[in-house]
Amino acid sequence: MRRDRRAIGIGLMGLGVVGSGVARILQEKADVYARQIGYPLELRRVLVRDVAKPRACEIDPSLLTTDASALLADPEIELVIEVIGGEQPAYGYLREALRAGKFVVTGNKEVMAKHGGELLALAREHDVDLLYEASVGGGIPIIAPLKRDLLANDIVSVTAIINGTTNYILTAMRDGTVAFADALAEAQRLGYAEPDPTNDVEGIDAAYKLAILAALAFHIDARPEDVYREGITRLDPRDFAYARELGYAIKLLAISRKQDGCVQLRVHPAFVAEGELLANVDGVLNAVQIEGDLMSRVLFQGPGAGSLPTTSAVVADALDAAVSISNQVYWPHSFRREAGVALMPAGEITSRYYLRIGVADRPGVLATIAGALAEAGISIASLIQKEAGEDGGAEIVIMTHEARESSMRMALDAIAALPGVGGVAQIVRVHG
Amino acid sequence: MRRDRRAIGIGLMGLGVVGSGVARILQEKADVYARQIGYPLELRRVLVRDVAKPRACEIDPSLLTTDASALLADPEIELVIEVIGGEQPAYGYLREALRAGKFVVTGNKEVMAKHGGELLALAREHDVDLLYEASVGGGIPIIAPLKRDLLANDIVSVTAIINGTTNYILTAMRDGTVAFADALAEAQRLGYAEPDPTNDVEGIDAAYKLAILAALAFHIDARPEDVYREGITRLDPRDFAYARELGYAIKLLAISRKQDGCVQLRVHPAFVAEGELLANVDGVLNAVQIEGDLMSRVLFQGPGAGSLPTTSAVVADALDAAVSISNQVYWPHSFRREAGVALMPAGEITSRYYLRIGVADRPGVLATIAGALAEAGISIASLIQKEAGEDGGAEIVIMTHEARESSMRMALDAIAALPGVGGVAQIVRVHG
Repeated sequence: MRRDRRAIGIGLMGLGVVGSGVARILQEKADVYARQIGYPLELRRVLVRDVAKPRACEIDPSLLTTDASALLADPEIELVIEVIGGEQPAYGYLREALRAGKFVVTGNKEVMAKHGGELLALAREHDVDLLYEASVGGGIPIIAPLKRDLLANDIVSVTAIINGTTNYILTAMRDGTVAFADALAEAQRLGYAEPDPTNDVEGIDAAYKLAILAALAFHIDARPEDVYREGITRLDPRDFAYARELGYAIKLLAISRKQDGCVQLRVHPAFVAEGELLANVDGVLNAVQIEGDLMSRVLFQGPGAGSLPTTSAVVADALDAAVSISNQVYWPHSFRREAGVALMPAGEITSRYYLRIGVADRPGVLATIAGALAEAGISIASLIQKEAGEDGGAEIVIMTHEARESSMRMALDAIAALPGVGGVAQIVRVHG
Repeated sequence: MRRDRRAIGIGLMGLGVVGSGVARILQEKADVYARQIGYPLELRRVLVRDVAKPRACEIDPSLLTTDASALLADPEIELVIEVIGGEQPAYGYLREALRAGKFVVTGNKEVMAKHGGELLALAREHDVDLLYEASVGGGIPIIAPLKRDLLANDIVSVTAIINGTTNYILTAMRDGTVAFADALAEAQRLGYAEPDPTNDVEGIDAAYKLAILAALAFHIDARPEDVYREGITRLDPRDFAYARELGYAIKLLAISRKQDGCVQLRVHPAFVAEGELLANVDGVLNAVQIEGDLMSRVLFQGPGAGSLPTTSAVVADALDAAVSISNQVYWPHSFRREAGVALMPAGEITSRYYLRIGVADRPGVLATIAGALAEAGISIASLIQKEAGEDGGAEIVIMTHEARESSMRMALDAIAALPGVGGVAQIVRVHG
């Protein structure tokens, strides 16, 4: 039984970079989308902070409102699109919208990472759907494939480059042999990094997205605080030079992997062998590689941000929601949560490592370092020792075989205390 | 209103490489899928040609039947999975299944390419869905993303490596500097190529898949016979050497592009610049790059064939269909057909070209060739002339700027008739 319907009313919350794109495209492509869905999608209200502010997109000023409650209470609005970003007030709005029985589309990675489980349960309770394709990977379809297309698989791992800002900076550091600060300044000048870059360069943004992907891939409750996290601020041009010499790129990877019934969650810089697909994802591009027991490895790559790519994801979700609304159907894809899946403590994660150690240029130092590693049960795969510089200090670069994180920490403490060692200047995990 | 239900009955048609994988996985993962869908998926009958034949998968012999009509008439079977392959009898079975109001999942590229439009209309008429993710790209989700996730976009182009056999052969020819026949023999030995390799090496398989992708991407009726098609049999190790010298890989590309209201459809070998993503898709991997007006370029890459990757796609569709069946919902995604979209005649397609021309090693030949190209309005981007070999003949390699196909054909006729020219030994389009 379908209700007599002329259009599907949309309330848009937020009219910034993404919101303007969504408003423009919904208007420009109204005819195409109406043919697709069977009903026009009608923008009925748009929540903004300042009605008088000049806008990048043409929009009927009578649609603009600063009153969220009026939008959420409007019975003609069946679909709410939230592109405000940030935890509050967006989180509160989404709860209210779902409680009011409205379908919701959001691009809010922070809210979905922190409260996704609760909001999805709320949606289910009210027989509506909550769609969030735009929260990860911009224009790359990744949430929907995980929800539906890869569902036959037991997912083994998710390995992703999901922060365009840091990937831009790392690509610039490699290509230009420039310092982190200079690459960051250039990214800020180009608008790829924000004035306060903390969320990006410390891996917080990537951790949000990884928590969202891991929750879907492994059917677990994964939260941002569960993610072991290291940023890219300590990387040095010398590390890129050594990486190149050894045949690696350095990428900020977000990794979730199921192993022995536990799930690892970690975001950190990593050496990625040059032949690997992820080593060649450069600039602001994003890529997500998913390994499953049936399909082996599939890679999704594309623009991870930007107004139009993100609009592509938001509008695709809106069209999907509109089909559900017009058919009066609630589509409970993939709400399964598996019991008995634990998170792996960071100390138990194993990895190969790259170590760069400043040493005094005198006999015996190398032997004591090798001894400290052996003591911790860590074996050396390859080693580079460069001639002493003008300051009389030398540098040793060691690539280890697979080692447990806790063993490595023990070895690092021992090495730092050795006579003739200036300290472990750098430690980076090696992927794969 | 949902009917009282205990399970969703499945009829599996075909128990070959893919069918065995599907049967095994549906049984092995029965519990997981039942939790996902809410009902168990129950394999009720399996159509085979010979009930007595030994099978790669364990299956209850009482399920096997050689009687297609009995399977199709079984009211307990609500979902038919067809993995027989080939046009007949599969096409007839699919029509019968849809007419009987059953949901259908197929991996049959030939039937979908030749009869997809008719079968999808038939499905719509009977309020069921016809799903065919496995028909293109094996384990790579590509049909569902085109149907749903990229729907907000106007698709600009689809550029794909969608035949693993030819990609394996081309990779081997490049890496080993071996002749086509030797690379093909090796592929046959490894089971990557069939005893009769025509469908693969002549681009017929890729044309089927391109027709399926283009129909979805551009909302047109595209048929295999609409695809301009060249195979890889005429490529020579020398072409790979020149390609490497010029900074290109050679790939069999399937290209569909919308231009001036027309859609191009073509499968042919192409020079792909080494920096491009598609140049680095090697061996039996497949990749599909889709460009849209909003999301710019997104690439999907993964295993294009094989029992388990294809099973991944078939079972994902089966789970999707099962959700529709259990909700008694028909999900009419993307049946839109756009009027007024014409196919572009092959002669109007423009491209850059690589030409390899055998010439007599004497003065003036180069000038007459350049003159013939200029006469046709084609300008030369770069040129290599190698010293004469022992046979006294020399070889000229020309990279042209963008030229119309019809102009190039005119120029080729003129060049072939020139004195001192041994013939145009090779012509390959240059991508991008």
